[in-house]
Order: sequence, then C-alpha cells, then structure tokens
Amino acid sequence: MKTLVIISHPEIDDSGSQQYLLSSVPQTEDVTIHHLEGTYSASQPIDVEKEQQLLAAHDRILFQFPFYWYSSPPMLKRWQDEVLLEGFAYGKRTHRLSGKEFGLILVVGVPEKEYQAGGREGFAISALTTPFQAIARKTGMEYLKPLVIFQFPYMKEHEKMALLIRYQQMLTGDKSDSLKAREEWIVEQLEQTDRNLLGATGDLVLEEVLSTIEDNRLTLDELEMLLDNM
Amino acid sequence: MKTLVIISHPEIDDSGSQQYLLSSVPQTEDVTIHHLEGTYSASQPIDVEKEQQLLAAHDRILFQFPFYWYSSPPMLKRWQDEVLLEGFAYGKRTHRLSGKEFGLILVVGVPEKEYQAGGREGFAISALTTPFQAIARKTGMEYLKPLVIFQFPYMKEHEKMALLIRYQQMLTGDKSDSLKAREEWIVEQLEQTDRNLLGATGDLVLEEVLSTIEDNRLTLDELEMLLDNM
Repeated sequence: MKTLVIISHPEIDDSGSQQYLLSSVPQTEDVTIHHLEGTYSASQPIDVEKEQQLLAAHDRILFQFPFYWYSSPPMLKRWQDEVLLEGFAYGKRTHRLSGKEFGLILVVGVPEKEYQAGGREGFAISALTTPFQAIARKTGMEYLKPLVIFQFPYMKEHEKMALLIRYQQMLTGDKSDSLKAREEWIVEQLEQTDRNLLGATGDLVLEEVLSTIEDNRLTLDELEMLLDNM
Repeated sequence: MKTLVIISHPEIDDSGSQQYLLSSVPQTEDVTIHHLEGTYSASQPIDVEKEQQLLAAHDRILFQFPFYWYSSPPMLKRWQDEVLLEGFAYGKRTHRLSGKEFGLILVVGVPEKEYQAGGREGFAISALTTPFQAIARKTGMEYLKPLVIFQFPYMKEHEKMALLIRYQQMLTGDKSDSLKAREEWIVEQLEQTDRNLLGATGDLVLEEVLSTIEDNRLTLDELEMLLDNM
C-alpha cells in the first residue's frame, strides 16, 4: 500500500509538532511526503497534472495540517480547488480517486474536551470536518478515522511515544485498529524505524515501546479476546 | 446598521451570479462591498490593521463566496487566518467582534435537494458550514440564517427577482424575517434601488414586485396572522 501525505503548513520549520511528525515518518518507499508550501509559492501555479499523477499513484491520501479556524491553511484549499477537478476527482465518467482511502492528520491547539457541545469550541471535530468527509464521499474515497493531535507542546514523553506509533500506523498500517493488527504492526514497523533520525530520546522511546509490548503480550492477548467477544 | 460584505471569488468578472449580486447591492452608505481578490494579489500581504478597522466599523459582517469544495476560496481562508487574530477577534480580554451579526451568502452549483442524507452531496449546508458557525461562536458574533443561492444559471426570472429581494434584505434588513418585517422592508428598500444599474429587465422586475405586494397586501396580512398563531 502506497501512502501520500499532503502537508500544508505556512511555517513548517517553526512548528514543533510538524517537525516531530516529519522525524517520525517511516523510512519506506511506500510513503511519499509532499509539503505544498515547500513546493509552490503563493504566486506560483500548481502543477495540476503532476499532482493528479501523484494522487493516482497512491492508495491512501492523507491531509496533514494545523487546524486553523476549523479548517486547512489556504494553500491546501487552493490545491483542492485547482487539482480535484471534475473529470478527474468526480464526474459522470471518471473517478480516479475512487476506492482509495482518505484521512486527516490534524494539529489542534485547544484541548480535546473543548470540542463538544458545552465546551469552549462548541462543536465536535467530527462536525467541523464535515467538508472533508464530503470530499471523500464525492470522490468515492473511504474516510478514515482521523488522527487528531491536541496540544502537542504540552504532551508528556509517553504521550509523544504513543503519538509516534499512531502516526506511523496512520501512514503504513492496516486501516483496522484491532488490538491484534496494532500489536503486529507495532513490532514490525518500529524495528524498521531509522533511529538515527529520532535522536537519543526517540531511540530510547522505541526501545521502551518494544520491551513494553513484549512484557505485555499475554495481557494483550487476553484483552484482544475480551474485545473480540464484545 | 452598517454592513460589510466581504466577497471572495477568484474570477468575479466571469461569474454571472456574482455580477447579478453586485448589480443588486442597495445604493446606501450603510453597505460596504469589499472584494478580497480585487484588493490583494496572492503574493501581496493583507493589510491586517486596515481589515480589522473595517470589521470594527460595521455591525453586520457577511462572507459572500462560491461554495467550492464545501468551503470558501483560498483567499478568504487566508484572510481569516491573518486578520482574525487572538487579541482582536477572540482571547481573554478583547472581543472586538462581539455582539455583531455574521452571515454567509453562498453560491452553490448543485441543486438544494442533493444537500441531505441520501442526496448526491450527502450532507446538509448546515452541517457543511459548521466551521463558519464555530467562527461566529468563538468571536461572539450572532450567526444569521444564511442566504444560499442554488444553481443561479438555471434560475427563472421570478426566482432572480426573489433572490434580489432576499439579497437586499440580507444586506440591510432586520435579521427577523417575519412576514411583516419583510413586507415593510421590501416596499421601503425597493423604492430606493438605483434602477439605472439594474437595466430595463431589472426595472420591470422591481415594478412587478411593488405592484404584487400592493395587490396582495390583504392576503399577506391574513398569512401573517396565521403564521403568528402557529
């Protein structure tokens, strides 16, 4: 399975969360990272044909961006309007994206609990992302459960560790997140991660994850049976 | 009441619907039309201070745009991200937009009936515009019932006539759309419309509206009583 991660961030070098995600990208030919603002300036035309070929060549399309004003940065919207054209993305005859998977990786500055009725933001992420769900629907793509990263700067080390796993799984894993699929994926993928890129802390984190999984395998098996019977 | 209409359309000269709306703008100092793409090019910085002053000087803020991919064109998103800053639009101390009214004027290419579960688009306009409702909520503005214009090119003359009225009312009318408020508003406002700008057809349209209202005043009063008792 080939995954295309379309990142939109106007100042990616200054973003701690985006840099952490970039350093966590699995080193495999099956993942293509494509940062729009790093590819096109505001006044530069988007290479529509090249973008459409890129989409066609991948099975899972992910949009990764900071959730500014409950939506994407302007560059990603521009990309949508110029690339997802009738006759390519939708229309009577052609559905070039049909059957692919589509997902969001959102970086959000406000705590998760505020995104509900009665919370400070008032609306759930599931409601605010309706336009993206509609895009998936119109183009015939399957909308994946999103990866939403709340308040990255306040994350503790073990939370970042869990994020790394969820991110790598979003990029390369089976869309199923059953416990069995997760466990298998975690062991397989983490052993392939390029540890040099993660630095000393990241390397320790990986070691800890692997040994934790091994220690808890029996518990995981029990949990799995429990979940399967629910 | 002063109304600011922020229009975002990348090719406004070629848009029949936008040109029709522009020709229908009431000739009054209380309405300010502000076309973003006509003010700033893609590579030009947005004058944030000037935009914030413009917002502060108006009581009703309207976003008018073609509903591309279930959202605004990229320029309006850029404007949101750069102008609606913490410390101005929201934050602990300052809420400069608080108490204002906020509304959407959407031009949509697909028929209204498709915007529902089971329809071709699958989601209601009310669901797809959640991000804008969240903006109103966060900035303390009252979210108005939107004016959604479906399939303008297929509209019949009497439908365009009705649209003209609804548009003018959105720009200058009381937010209440009770029958009484509508009737009073229609008679007052239409008599002030600059007929030269509308051309011969528009002029005829206005005449017809005014005489229709006069003929049906009794019926309207009855309907009003009926509605008030519901």
